[in-house]
Formats: sequence, structure tokens, C-alpha cells
Amino acid sequence: MKNRIIVIGGLAAGPAAASKAARTNPQAEIILFEQSEYISYGICELPYFINNKIPFKENLILYSPEKFSAEKNIIVKTNHSVREIIPQKKMILVHDLEKGRLDEYNYDNLILTTGSKSVTHYAFGNHPNVFYLKSLQDALEIKKFIDYQTPKKVTIIGAGFIALEMAESFSSLGMDVTILNIEDLPLKGFEPETGKFALNSLSQNKVRYIKYNSIDGFEYSDQNNIIKIKTDAAEVEQDLILISIGIEPNIDLGKSAKLKTGVRGGYLVDQRMMTSISNIYAAGDCCEIKNSITNKYYYSPFATTALKTGWIAGENAAGGNTILRSSIPAYTVSFFDAEAAHTGLSFNDAISNGFLAEKTSIEGWAQPKIYPGAGKINVTLIYDKRDGRILGADISGKSGAALRANIISTAIYQKLTLKDLLNLDFAYAPQSTPQRDPVLYAAGKGLKSNN
Amino acid sequence: MKNRIIVIGGLAAGPAAASKAARTNPQAEIILFEQSEYISYGICELPYFINNKIPFKENLILYSPEKFSAEKNIIVKTNHSVREIIPQKKMILVHDLEKGRLDEYNYDNLILTTGSKSVTHYAFGNHPNVFYLKSLQDALEIKKFIDYQTPKKVTIIGAGFIALEMAESFSSLGMDVTILNIEDLPLKGFEPETGKFALNSLSQNKVRYIKYNSIDGFEYSDQNNIIKIKTDAAEVEQDLILISIGIEPNIDLGKSAKLKTGVRGGYLVDQRMMTSISNIYAAGDCCEIKNSITNKYYYSPFATTALKTGWIAGENAAGGNTILRSSIPAYTVSFFDAEAAHTGLSFNDAISNGFLAEKTSIEGWAQPKIYPGAGKINVTLIYDKRDGRILGADISGKSGAALRANIISTAIYQKLTLKDLLNLDFAYAPQSTPQRDPVLYAAGKGLKSNN
Repeated sequence: MKNRIIVIGGLAAGPAAASKAARTNPQAEIILFEQSEYISYGICELPYFINNKIPFKENLILYSPEKFSAEKNIIVKTNHSVREIIPQKKMILVHDLEKGRLDEYNYDNLILTTGSKSVTHYAFGNHPNVFYLKSLQDALEIKKFIDYQTPKKVTIIGAGFIALEMAESFSSLGMDVTILNIEDLPLKGFEPETGKFALNSLSQNKVRYIKYNSIDGFEYSDQNNIIKIKTDAAEVEQDLILISIGIEPNIDLGKSAKLKTGVRGGYLVDQRMMTSISNIYAAGDCCEIKNSITNKYYYSPFATTALKTGWIAGENAAGGNTILRSSIPAYTVSFFDAEAAHTGLSFNDAISNGFLAEKTSIEGWAQPKIYPGAGKINVTLIYDKRDGRILGADISGKSGAALRANIISTAIYQKLTLKDLLNLDFAYAPQSTPQRDPVLYAAGKGLKSNN
Repeated sequence: MKNRIIVIGGLAAGPAAASKAARTNPQAEIILFEQSEYISYGICELPYFINNKIPFKENLILYSPEKFSAEKNIIVKTNHSVREIIPQKKMILVHDLEKGRLDEYNYDNLILTTGSKSVTHYAFGNHPNVFYLKSLQDALEIKKFIDYQTPKKVTIIGAGFIALEMAESFSSLGMDVTILNIEDLPLKGFEPETGKFALNSLSQNKVRYIKYNSIDGFEYSDQNNIIKIKTDAAEVEQDLILISIGIEPNIDLGKSAKLKTGVRGGYLVDQRMMTSISNIYAAGDCCEIKNSITNKYYYSPFATTALKTGWIAGENAAGGNTILRSSIPAYTVSFFDAEAAHTGLSFNDAISNGFLAEKTSIEGWAQPKIYPGAGKINVTLIYDKRDGRILGADISGKSGAALRANIISTAIYQKLTLKDLLNLDFAYAPQSTPQRDPVLYAAGKGLKSNN
């Protein structure tokens, strides 16, 4: 059966969707458009490319366009910017950036994997020393600035995942790092317990954290660099500014096609990853999906979700019939010697979604406390006090936070309760795990306070 | 209500049972007998006490008898050896080792937590340089021998958990270590894939591994030490021998009371941890419990199970009514820079229990493969090919094996399938976890081969 599948966006969800479509229907003609020159690279690894831990650009690239095309039987067109979708004609208009011309392409099925973009902080405007980090191109520009300008002081605006990873990255290059944030604590997507843990870790690693309410002005260098930021809380001097105040779905393209979007701005897709227009699918950071705990749309701009949803969109676009059976928030961040992970609902989300949410926090040992060098693990469990059902968790420590969050993800998938957690059998050996895992210790504490 | 609860055995299950009984019924009179002078110490940490990583005996001890007694409101009698149970009279006979006399104690409820003992290798007999490691006393004797005799070469008979941990311990003290084992691979309780991983790790750490079939003779020193072991495979010279060929339930006491025992020799208990005689409970290494996957009795001589079953026995002996809701094998061992973990059924156990078992193995990355220093993780999933239900798993690598096994334990608890695993949301960040966890990668491979 003739089936031309066009995939727009080549970073994570796009290649996943295209590959899966090719495996599902080897007869399909699959074209992947990407506006930059790169596809399929490790975007989450950019902080470690900037600090040279990952030495070469080539190390980041999982597939070159040529390799991807040859191995997967997919036509790859980089430096092609898709400008418009015309659903009535099942057609897209594509700007070939190399040849400088506009081409029309018909599709049978279209998959939008246009990803996300940095939220812009308009107060800062365009200055040579002001950067965002959302692409390999961004990273290359930051590296170039570092190489030529040798900045000594850096200010990061925001304190989310990338902000904290970049605080480590810049610090490891010997720079003084200041974080300016509008919240009392870093890591807004986590519980305050985790935010305090993160703040403590930053402080131990000599990263200054300043909470501000308003930016009151700037001072500029002769080169038009912002060399001073004046806020209500402090004046901060720096050679380089990284703005990292969040990301949002990149959906400019879908506006022309009038695709339905949600409260976070992402394309609303059904369980098959189809948008509000048939034969148009979406996956990854550009869409919103249903949270299995609340059954409401939410935004999950993570590489893991991009892969999962990309595979589903690709399979369905190629004639398959598969659905997203479950999705809950699950994310982690590592910075310096700290690791923080979250799964499921936050306490506030649980409350606002009608759960009788309660939370319990403990600080436990990652190894037996009598074992020299044993580290601490903080566990916050969020549960419904009516039945003890686990709704979410925050876990932080030196290591082992993400894998423990994955244990809780597995528990949430099956609606396990605090009591169920205590029935579980966990493996124990002094060098790897404690006799009673902090996760179980937290469940026990929650159960006691819930009785 | 009058309730005298007597607990026999003070290592792990005993203190857990006694504490829980005291919390359940603060009016109960609780007496804990222990034949040695120590209670409540970290037996799993003994290898790290022997190599001085844990420097002092006192570091191992979680509760001294005095502290335990004072904090928990429990009468603790160390150096008391219980000699006989007379169920008809609800009475025990106790040898006070300090005063050298035999006393009678009546009980309302009795909890047996007599633990396990080393399986004896009779060929070796009693020699000054032949050791077992099953108690703090054993460890102290090994340390004394090391201090006074400065052994250069060590032979370990067996290749289970303690054998491998002690291979690391002795190596770290600068000794040459040889393992003599009757199996082709170490770690018999694991899949051959894990055994090969362990063998490779031993070899990289200069531990010689010799598989033998028969011991053909010994040579002795003037001090009656066994200085040479002659086997069909090789002749091995050493200054110190550690025999570590397994453990078995310590049930001599129960024989007099005619308590029912199982195929592994442990007391058979019901879900309330009651033995075949009412008012007599058992917990920990001395009993057999039901495996939730097979619903058959099995032997789980681990500290985690000791705690879990001890709490249940203690609560019920004190008038509560709680049951062991779930129990599956779950264990891990760390040696050198290797970590191996198992949960659920082995492939062979799954087959012999009537499952249409299949297994799939992968070697995946513990971090993104483009991240410098990313380690490998081996995952073997055992599942039923009829429905893809997960039955067990072996996981090994440099780290993260035990926590991943705990994820699978959580999945097994609710009878999740390979497909379910692929629906899970796991957290990802380059420094802690890969974009697609090896556990999911293995599930995907299993699902493909199962179609």
C-alpha cells in the first residue's frame, strides 16, 4: 500500500518515529525534514560537551543524516525548514535552505516532532554574551564564546534542570557561577524538600544562589555585553549570561493548520498520538499527552517520552494500531555530586487533582550506616491518605535517586499503596544497598502517620 | 493480658521480633536469649571488618544488649543457650553459660530465631588455619590468625556470596586468593550469564578460580595447618583456608519439640509465621516460607527476610494478626567493582515449577553510551512465554544492579509482563541513567523474540 510518511523534526521523537514507521511498513516512503544540519544527537549531554567532558561534537551524534538514511531506509533532508501544513491538500511547503527555494510535498501521514524551544526572557534582549541552551548550535556558540572571551564569571538565570547542570559545567571550567532565580529554591518541578537539598549542594560547590523579584536594569560593556544585572536583591557582574527559565512546545508550524493545542501550548494528541486532524500525528516535546494518574493532559518534554511517543506515532502512521498505555512524569537531574529524581504527581498537583494527598519525608542511608562512606538518600512519598495509594515521589542523594524513582514509577503503574511497598522484597548487600531501603523506610513512616 | 514472649536468637530476626512484640503489646514481658555475647550486629558487614574497612568490632554492633534492653523494654540474656523446648508445658530449658546452670522458663508465646549455620566440609576437619565465617566470633578468629600468622596465600572453598566478598576482602589485604569450587562458574544461585560476569571480574582482580571434582588429599605443616590441598584439577598451597560452601537452617533446638521442617531443613511456618505447634513462631534463617510466585516453600536466608518475618512473628506473638503477604527471592552481592543481583525465580526454578519459561539477556549501558566512562549493565529477564509475565531477573554490572533488581521485584509483585515494563516511565539524565534503561531494552528484546 502506498504510504508516504513525512516526519518533521530530526532530534529525538522524529528519528524514533521514522525508524519505527520503516520497521512497521518497509514499503512506506519515509521522509524526515530537519531545519538544522544535525539530526539525532544527545541534547541532554550538551552540558558535558560544553565543559569538554565529551570532547568532540561528533561524540554527541548518534546518527549522521547519511548513516541514518542508509541504515533505516529513510530519506533525510537536513537544512530544510517546513513552513506550512495544508491539511486539506495533505501537503506541506518546505523551504530548502541550501537551494533557497520553496517545494511542495504531499503526504499520506504526517508526524510532527518539532520539539520545544527555550522560553525567552525578553528583558535581556540580544547581546553577544547572552545565551540560551536548547540545541547543538547553541552549545557551539557558548563554547566559541568561552574559547575566545575566556569568561571568569557566569550568571545563570533560572534554576531548573539545565541551569543546575550548567552550573556544574561552568564551575568545572573554573568559572565563578551565580544563579539568579525568581523562586526561593531551585528545581521548581520538585518538592521543597528536594529544592533545599539542591540549594545545599550548590552552596557546597560554591555556586551563589540569589532569589530576586525584579530586574531593575543592566550595565553594558563597549562590546554591548551585559556586564551587570541589577535586581531588587543584588547587583551581579558577569562575563557570560545563560538564560534557562524553561522550555515550551515549538508549535508555530501547527498554527497554520489550526491543530488543537492544550494549556501548556502543546498539540493535543489522542492515545494513538494523532492530533486533532486525522493523518497528522505528533510526538515528543511539541505535544501534550494524558497523565495516567489524573487522566488530564500534561507536558512531558523529556527524551524518554520523546522516544516512547515517537515509536507510537511512527507505528500508527505506518498502518499499525498501538496506543500510549501509560504515562506519568518521571525525570531526574544530576549536578556536582547530587542526584535528584521525581516521579508521578507533585504534592500540589495531587491536591489540585482532587486527591486527599499527604506526604512523608525521610532521610535514610544509601548503604548500611555502619558501612564507611555510606551516603544519605532523601525520600519524599506523596500518597492518598484514604487508601495509601502512592501518587508520586521525590528522591535525592549522591546517587541511586533516579533508580529508586524508577522503583516508585513501577509501583505507581499498578496503583500500589504504602502497604504494598512494605511487602516488596529488595536486595541487600553492604556495598550497594542498605538492609532496609530508604524507600521502604519512607513507606513505613507514611503508613504510621496515616493510621 | 499476661503474655510472656520468649525469643531465642539475637542476631537479626530475633531483635526485630522482640522489638515489634514490645511495640505491639507494651504490657508483654519479653525475654530474648542469645547464646553468644553479642546481639544485633551487622553480620553481612563481616568481610569489611576483616579487611579493616570497618575498623572496630564496636562499629558492627547496632545495639549492645544493654542498649537494646533499655530502649526496647526487653529482657536480654546473652551467654544463655536454650537446650530444649517442651511444648506440652510451654517451657524451655536454658543453660546459663556464665553461671553454669540449667533453668526452666515458661512462655506464653515462643519465637525461634536461631538463624543458620555454615555447611561443614567434613573432608577438611579441624585445623588451626581452616575457618568458616558465620558469626562475629568467626570473624574475630580469622582476624587474629591474620594478625599473628600473616598469611600470604588464601584458598576459599566455594564461590557464593561470602566467598566472593571474602575474595575481595583478602585481596585488599594483599593476599593471593584462590577459589576452589565444584561448579564451572561462581554464584550458583544466579544464571550462568551472571556466573560468567563474576568469573570475569575475579579474573580481572587476579583471583584464581579452579573448578574441581574431588579433593584427593592434604599436606600439613608442623602446626597441623593444611598447607596443600590436592584436587583432581590442581594442587593448591595456602596459609589460610576459608570454607564457604553454603548455609543451612540452625534447627537442632526444634528437633526435640518435633517441629515440622521442609526440604531445606527449615521450620515450616504459616503466613502468620507460626510453626506446626501453636504458640511457637519462627522467623529468619531458621525457617522456610512460601514463595509468592510458586506458592511453594523456599529458603530465603537473608537479612531482609529476617527483618520482614521477624516483625510479623513478633506482632502475632504479641497478640496481633498480620501475615506475610508476599515473598520472593531477592539478593545481591558486591565484590571488587562488580555488583550482581537476582530477584524472583531462576530460569531452572521457573521451568521446574511448570512455567513455560524463556529468558532473554542483553548487555546495555548504565549511562548514555556517549557519556565518558559509561559502564555496562547485564540484564537477564526470565518470563513465561505464554503471557510474557516476568518471573525473575539477574542483573549485573559495576553498580546499579541491585536497584534495578528492585524495580523488577516491584514488577513481579503485581505480575507485570514484558509489555507492561515497556509502558513504564523511567527517569533519565546522562550522569545517572541512560535514555533507555537496560531493563526496558531487555524487555523489548524479550517481547520481540516472544512474538
